[in-house]
Amino acid sequence: MKNVEVCLTPDLVDLYVAKGKVVVVIDILRATTCMTTAIANGVKSLIPVATLDECRALCKKGYIGAAERDGKTAEGFDLGNSPFSYMDKNLAGKTIAVTTTNGTQAILRSKDADEIIIGSFLNKTAVINYLNSQSKDVLLVCAGWKGKINLEDTLYAGAVIDGLDENFFFENDSAITAQTLYKFAKNNKRAFLENSSHVRRLNHLNIDKDIEFCLKDDVYNVIPVLRGNELVMMEMEEVEKTAVRRK
Amino acid sequence: MKNVEVCLTPDLVDLYVAKGKVVVVIDILRATTCMTTAIANGVKSLIPVATLDECRALCKKGYIGAAERDGKTAEGFDLGNSPFSYMDKNLAGKTIAVTTTNGTQAILRSKDADEIIIGSFLNKTAVINYLNSQSKDVLLVCAGWKGKINLEDTLYAGAVIDGLDENFFFENDSAITAQTLYKFAKNNKRAFLENSSHVRRLNHLNIDKDIEFCLKDDVYNVIPVLRGNELVMMEMEEVEKTAVRRK
Repeated sequence: MKNVEVCLTPDLVDLYVAKGKVVVVIDILRATTCMTTAIANGVKSLIPVATLDECRALCKKGYIGAAERDGKTAEGFDLGNSPFSYMDKNLAGKTIAVTTTNGTQAILRSKDADEIIIGSFLNKTAVINYLNSQSKDVLLVCAGWKGKINLEDTLYAGAVIDGLDENFFFENDSAITAQTLYKFAKNNKRAFLENSSHVRRLNHLNIDKDIEFCLKDDVYNVIPVLRGNELVMMEMEEVEKTAVRRK
Repeated sequence: MKNVEVCLTPDLVDLYVAKGKVVVVIDILRATTCMTTAIANGVKSLIPVATLDECRALCKKGYIGAAERDGKTAEGFDLGNSPFSYMDKNLAGKTIAVTTTNGTQAILRSKDADEIIIGSFLNKTAVINYLNSQSKDVLLVCAGWKGKINLEDTLYAGAVIDGLDENFFFENDSAITAQTLYKFAKNNKRAFLENSSHVRRLNHLNIDKDIEFCLKDDVYNVIPVLRGNELVMMEMEEVEKTAVRRK
């Protein structure tokens, strides 16, 4: 039996053991959605870094820089945190250095894991199938918002839990909480999230189209995975060998 | 308008402002249930302390000592963490020094608050009525389990949120999460909690009767409140002036 746990915010990550596990990093609005979109659209790799300075340093070395702070593109950077900007054909084959308010921090704080993969609604079933197919325990790490939990990441954690097969067990209350939220909201995620703090923050930024896209299930059958310091596309046989979609 | 927030574990309390607010400390299984029971049954006051050593020191000064670690009465103490043990007539008029795994820590970490009160299902409506009647913002602090969130405290936070009147607003995702759980589980709290980590831990201790009691609504119309370093009964006019029960 494999164990699955949910860490609802990176501020609690020290309470969990990542070592020996597959960690799924979750930042639905919008970091991990962007990463999934980028890798699915031909971006070669993404280098997650913690600070704007590190991101700038990598830009000087010739990488493309993507930086978001408080929902907006940070000054001096070309790319921000809209998934649509990662569909640009000019980015295909390139490596992007990326830093975001919450998502990249969650990746960097999970470095002890055996493997770190990127989860979003866009690749939900690919992630579930992969987790079911492999043999390690799983830790879902939600990026939250500045240390606090958020609804959209919790909801996605619940969606993953809900899709795991009978070889998984969970005995932590965060997992039950996430799954309960998902059961409550799965048929109308957008309406449920309308009251969330993050969606209201983003509504001010006029990115309705972004939010709509971030909540779409199974747009891509890819999984970004951290190899060394870079997120790259997981080899397709890993993803496809269990690609029979579940209802 | 008054704001209400939910801090799901004491490990996140530094992300919240307690100053200027009424803090409700919540440790349903079983610290705040015991405190409510004690005060309702005539115990004069309770002194929450962080460590077993502090508790022993107060015992040497003549106070009664209550100490729980990992669900069990700590060695060398008379009282543990069963609410029934606080109904003892011999405790009436006495002061009890108390330390528990999670609950007393949550109280001590909320010291910046304008006022700290104790919430449990046993005094749920008294707490809701008091919060509605007073004018300050409110922070609900769940004790959780060793830093992680737990279901029963989150559920109670949701019950309080659900009972607040139209003069309250909330814009944090923890509050929405708690209220959603409560809506999902309110008609059968015990069944919902059956899978929770804490209830399963406690089941090993054979305290089924305790759990049953801890989930009872509105057994007592009292509110323990921290005055100085002691939890005492809130003056009844504060509690009663809004004592019209809501459905």
